[in-house]
Amino acid sequence: MNAHDTTRLIALDWGTSNLRASRLGDGGQVLETRAAAGGVMAVPERRFEAALRALCGDWLDAAPRRPVIASGMVGSRQGWQEAPYVACPAGLAQAAAQLTRIDLAGGAALHIVPGLRCVGRDGQHDVMRGEETQLWGADLAPGSVAVLPGTHAKWAWLGEGSGGQGEITSFQTYMTGELYGLATAHGILGRLMRFDGGPQPAAFERGARLGLAEHANATHVLFAARTAGLMGEVAPEALPDFLSGLLIGIEIGSATRAATPRAVTLVGDDALCARYAAALACAGIDAPNAPPEATTRGQWRVAEAAGLLEGGR
Amino acid sequence: MNAHDTTRLIALDWGTSNLRASRLGDGGQVLETRAAAGGVMAVPERRFEAALRALCGDWLDAAPRRPVIASGMVGSRQGWQEAPYVACPAGLAQAAAQLTRIDLAGGAALHIVPGLRCVGRDGQHDVMRGEETQLWGADLAPGSVAVLPGTHAKWAWLGEGSGGQGEITSFQTYMTGELYGLATAHGILGRLMRFDGGPQPAAFERGARLGLAEHANATHVLFAARTAGLMGEVAPEALPDFLSGLLIGIEIGSATRAATPRAVTLVGDDALCARYAAALACAGIDAPNAPPEATTRGQWRVAEAAGLLEGGR
Repeated sequence: MNAHDTTRLIALDWGTSNLRASRLGDGGQVLETRAAAGGVMAVPERRFEAALRALCGDWLDAAPRRPVIASGMVGSRQGWQEAPYVACPAGLAQAAAQLTRIDLAGGAALHIVPGLRCVGRDGQHDVMRGEETQLWGADLAPGSVAVLPGTHAKWAWLGEGSGGQGEITSFQTYMTGELYGLATAHGILGRLMRFDGGPQPAAFERGARLGLAEHANATHVLFAARTAGLMGEVAPEALPDFLSGLLIGIEIGSATRAATPRAVTLVGDDALCARYAAALACAGIDAPNAPPEATTRGQWRVAEAAGLLEGGR
Repeated sequence: MNAHDTTRLIALDWGTSNLRASRLGDGGQVLETRAAAGGVMAVPERRFEAALRALCGDWLDAAPRRPVIASGMVGSRQGWQEAPYVACPAGLAQAAAQLTRIDLAGGAALHIVPGLRCVGRDGQHDVMRGEETQLWGADLAPGSVAVLPGTHAKWAWLGEGSGGQGEITSFQTYMTGELYGLATAHGILGRLMRFDGGPQPAAFERGARLGLAEHANATHVLFAARTAGLMGEVAPEALPDFLSGLLIGIEIGSATRAATPRAVTLVGDDALCARYAAALACAGIDAPNAPPEATTRGQWRVAEAAGLLEGGR
């Protein structure tokens, strides 16, 4: 008998840039976590199994019959194996029914959670991979709205139906984080900026209020991050947060233009969620944080719904 | 007597990337034009006079008493000398009264046309340098709307007042060209694209119609240039024009959201104006082109209004 007898599930959060592995015990409690900069785009020669073993081969060897579950870009065309999208509305049951299985050397099986796709009111497709699993771990109430900030921020609307299954009715991606990165690293807006000024909450709020009011004129109002600098209205060290507020304000104004929710639940990185909470407050929207460990909790729930946790104790 | 006795004005269109010099004769007719990649950001050690003489020192020597006029970024803080902005509403008379004079070796004087600034309905400053002079040369009717496509596209609204002075009431900058460049060169949208497919007018129009309809959700709908590729709805070689249409459609939808003009006059590069005309047609807006040589005609008119052309014949 060894310590790994307690392992019930090995859960991989495998994104574009990072691989995070967690060893989960009874009830999905996190026993141990390891991370590597081994994201999907960084795996040499697409040797995904080698990358996995390098991070947690000892876990696999010690608990060879325990299931492994993976969510994120690992299921994309550039990932280990493409896990076809499930169409919205979709909840735990639909995802659990469409796991993509990969047999690993040594006898364990890895199960990739499918991403979701939906068609918006604008007639366009949208996609997510990984965020659906976080949403299922975020204890969201039926009918609620959740936001996952990031490079490609996701807004998700949950179904009103019989709770517990976390049915995601529709979602929308906003390119907020990517546009901030492009504009500051490569664009004209970055040229007037200084990045050593620390947090600038007043400039952030000023940008957020402007973005909320002018979201319908977005590709114009972004230029204010240049003119406000040129005219000396926002200091060089405050311009980065002014632009950040502007982009987040545009996102919130756009996403809530048809109907303003009373609250949206924030899921993700604390610092980024705090920015969103500040901007949402400007719009009069409450912004509770989801409980921590939404990802592993969602992975546990998918594994449970798929029957992967039965037997083998 | 030499050929340069016919010179009445030397006119410089001096932007960020290029310097274009024209020798104008009676009535502002273009006698000769020369260009160099000697834009404001490319002048070594800020030696602007040397850059000017390298391109057309012979013109200056042959006609030392003729005035030189310059418009564009040469009047910016990074340019030869900062020419303070004139506030809108402003026409030829206001600009002519605020030229910034630089005395050149050899006796000629160079006059920099001021840029314009205005405060939009959103409370934000906007600025232009060089476009105001093009507008004054574009033979615009009172009350008309003009668009100058480009990296930072400008929409300008002209006053209804007593014509002839080209009063610019207000204007707005759209970051359309810059966002296209950033997204295709450095962003995720460019990764699915091929750039060797030639013109793709159907994809452009599809993007333009989507951008027009969804301009109030801009930072979301741009992601369609990824999902339409992922889902196989737009081919890799058609994605660049799909994105171009999307961004131009967002611009037009945003700029006309309060009031749709019957027509807008396009001023600038033919290929870019043709794109705008196609997208404006999707919005039911006529798009006549301004007559050619708007820049030199505008420079001539400013010089005339400033009294620079009097005497010395």
